[in-house]
Amino acid sequence: MIVCKFGGTSVANAEQIKKVFNIVKSNPERKVVAVSAPGKRSSEDIKVTDLLIDLAETALLNGDVEAKIATVVKRYDDIAAGLGLDHMMAEIIATDLEERVAGDKSNRDRFIDNVKASGEDNNAKLIAAYFNSQGIPARYVSPKGTLILNDPPERTFALPEAYDNLSQLKKTEEVIIFPGFFGYTKNGVLRTFDRGGSDITGSILASAVGADLYENFTDVDCVFSANPKVINNPAEIKEITYREMRELSYAGFAVFHDEALMPVYKQGIPVNIKNTNNPSAPGTRIVPVRTEQARPVTGISADSGFSTLYVSKYLMNREIGFGRKLLQIIEEENISYEHTPSGLDDISVIMRSIQLTPEKEERIVRRVKEELHADAAYFRHGFSMIVIVGEGMRNNTGLAARATTAISSTGANIEMINQGSSEVSVVFGVYSQFEEQILKALYNEFFSPVNV
Amino acid sequence: MIVCKFGGTSVANAEQIKKVFNIVKSNPERKVVAVSAPGKRSSEDIKVTDLLIDLAETALLNGDVEAKIATVVKRYDDIAAGLGLDHMMAEIIATDLEERVAGDKSNRDRFIDNVKASGEDNNAKLIAAYFNSQGIPARYVSPKGTLILNDPPERTFALPEAYDNLSQLKKTEEVIIFPGFFGYTKNGVLRTFDRGGSDITGSILASAVGADLYENFTDVDCVFSANPKVINNPAEIKEITYREMRELSYAGFAVFHDEALMPVYKQGIPVNIKNTNNPSAPGTRIVPVRTEQARPVTGISADSGFSTLYVSKYLMNREIGFGRKLLQIIEEENISYEHTPSGLDDISVIMRSIQLTPEKEERIVRRVKEELHADAAYFRHGFSMIVIVGEGMRNNTGLAARATTAISSTGANIEMINQGSSEVSVVFGVYSQFEEQILKALYNEFFSPVNV
Repeated sequence: MIVCKFGGTSVANAEQIKKVFNIVKSNPERKVVAVSAPGKRSSEDIKVTDLLIDLAETALLNGDVEAKIATVVKRYDDIAAGLGLDHMMAEIIATDLEERVAGDKSNRDRFIDNVKASGEDNNAKLIAAYFNSQGIPARYVSPKGTLILNDPPERTFALPEAYDNLSQLKKTEEVIIFPGFFGYTKNGVLRTFDRGGSDITGSILASAVGADLYENFTDVDCVFSANPKVINNPAEIKEITYREMRELSYAGFAVFHDEALMPVYKQGIPVNIKNTNNPSAPGTRIVPVRTEQARPVTGISADSGFSTLYVSKYLMNREIGFGRKLLQIIEEENISYEHTPSGLDDISVIMRSIQLTPEKEERIVRRVKEELHADAAYFRHGFSMIVIVGEGMRNNTGLAARATTAISSTGANIEMINQGSSEVSVVFGVYSQFEEQILKALYNEFFSPVNV
Repeated sequence: MIVCKFGGTSVANAEQIKKVFNIVKSNPERKVVAVSAPGKRSSEDIKVTDLLIDLAETALLNGDVEAKIATVVKRYDDIAAGLGLDHMMAEIIATDLEERVAGDKSNRDRFIDNVKASGEDNNAKLIAAYFNSQGIPARYVSPKGTLILNDPPERTFALPEAYDNLSQLKKTEEVIIFPGFFGYTKNGVLRTFDRGGSDITGSILASAVGADLYENFTDVDCVFSANPKVINNPAEIKEITYREMRELSYAGFAVFHDEALMPVYKQGIPVNIKNTNNPSAPGTRIVPVRTEQARPVTGISADSGFSTLYVSKYLMNREIGFGRKLLQIIEEENISYEHTPSGLDDISVIMRSIQLTPEKEERIVRRVKEELHADAAYFRHGFSMIVIVGEGMRNNTGLAARATTAISSTGANIEMINQGSSEVSVVFGVYSQFEEQILKALYNEFFSPVNV
């Protein structure tokens, strides 16, 4: 059995949904399908989810909602028309939206979630209707009573009973069309996933039914070994392990949200990222273990927006608990950090700058000086992290030498090197102005035909 | 004013003490002198401190102490005779020792400290007598009532009043001879320093009197840039900063105990490590800021006996507090760690293996798995840390490339690289069997005439 997920652009209009239909139809193993809300039809378009958020916020301000409801309904009606379905669906959707908008507004987040989730929910109903109209028996299944989530304010995740409930779907004869992005608490309250919503739904479904494969359909042919905006025609990644994918996701490999991988990762179910617009392309397979290792390096990614807290104190490394106390202060500011390179008498904490404010920085510096009696403590900003990832790296003598030599060739100074815990990555910290040059130099070192 | 400290071999016999006398006499700025107990006169000799520990332990077991007291007294008597002093000193020392051995044995540690400290104390008295006999006015000053220490069980350190008391010595006309290694609590209880004892006493004296220079006399001409047991004729270090010295001390640069540097470091007082047996050699100067920077690298050191705790968990870096909780577990086992390299989903804690037992390891692994829900947690052993140190490193583009290339040339894999916090060091983790080869390769890269 294969579980498929189709993202927003894959279900943006009738033409796209026909592609989805043909993909599902072409392989009888494709029995469970998670769908997003209709996405952008062109780069200037507004996706349905954003229309719904705007609608919900207007309703909360007691604004005029009718025109906005009509805009959303029109999107579905156009799709239905393009698929040869009648106006019935649009009427059902209009009634559903009116009800949601008229619903309880006492909890703002809950109200917005409820309106927003209609995007996926109604799209799933519409797509199920289309499948049936084309002679492929299909059934819309609601997350209500099946995809059971934890209660707020904890980050949203599926409870064990969700997997039990959804495991029933493995017996299906019909194609199941399941809306992505949301579920319900035990008390029947609708909740959405924090990020990568429909990807997670597909991943949960794949895990619950014990799928042989989780196909994640999007609008790119594959995951590239480096950012195509920086590197011309970067190598395609045919196969990548979960942990390689995870390390790359650190710095802007946005194809697949890493949190969404968790349910399939736990079951060791392979994932295939494919293109709805080019389904014959093999795509990128994410697997537990990889056999093909033509290159030591699988991918290189980079991201800017990092800051460093530098702390020094003479004889620091004699002081049991120093590092722990420092991290406690960081934690009390609700900051997550990335790395903590250290010397004997100094330690740096690397974190995403977006988590900082001048007040937080000042408070942290003051506490570190007062409570830890540090000799020095200060922040530095404007760093990029560059990550080289590959299962073949660990035992590749000389890889660090090749990477550092390539970086030095750009004239950039290496501010930070972190190697030694992950078996599949090395992280370099540099000032952001060198990021692009370094990415190019590293790509050339590890991917150009003469160097491989 | 110069404060001098003379180590055990510098005051091991009459001949050595005459050298000390000539050194002090040759510069009238040398007004405060800290001395050790008589050390080894040859490689097979037993130093007086060890004789005293054996004596104290015998006394605690109610064994025969007379012969052991006689052995110690004979050492001093031989020295006195060699210096042309009469038997009076030996008699005073014998009486003193009898009293200490007959003293309160209810607190074992306190009793041993009391017997042990007589080594320095009596040597200082003897040396002061010799100076006076040679026409250089000298005065023995006791740590009692001057060098005031904190109470046990905290690690021994000097209280602020010690510095106040000892600051009076700056007005001295006579040469002050001060015994190293011990002081007294406010309640008059004798305590010894945990490590590097006489070095600390000298450093405290230098700080208290605001010395222009702290001369630390030992039995080597200088600090070398690498271990002479591994590298033939390593370069001599003429000048080194406190923090360079500190980073090198990480891995077996045992000339000068780093804790001893603290009091002079805080005052910015330069230190000169010199050779009692070759006082005209310039020695090694430890300074706050260094001007001469002929090479980017000042020294390379290496030490074995490190272990790594590896912990992995999917989505670890999303979990605020994970690193802190891990370090808390380590701390609760009373283990100090060296570095914590990390990937996205894994972190390694590097520590000295000597702190571990199979039981501790098992307990830590179990707690990490149970309390932190780690996917994997295990220890690995047999690592060496190799540290490259130099003030000129920070802005030396390409240094990491040179180092990693040199290491790779040995065929060794680099298990860990830690760069980015300390401005003056890079640490490499490797399996210990490669340590010597790598040290040679790095020395050759950074110190051989063709490469500098």
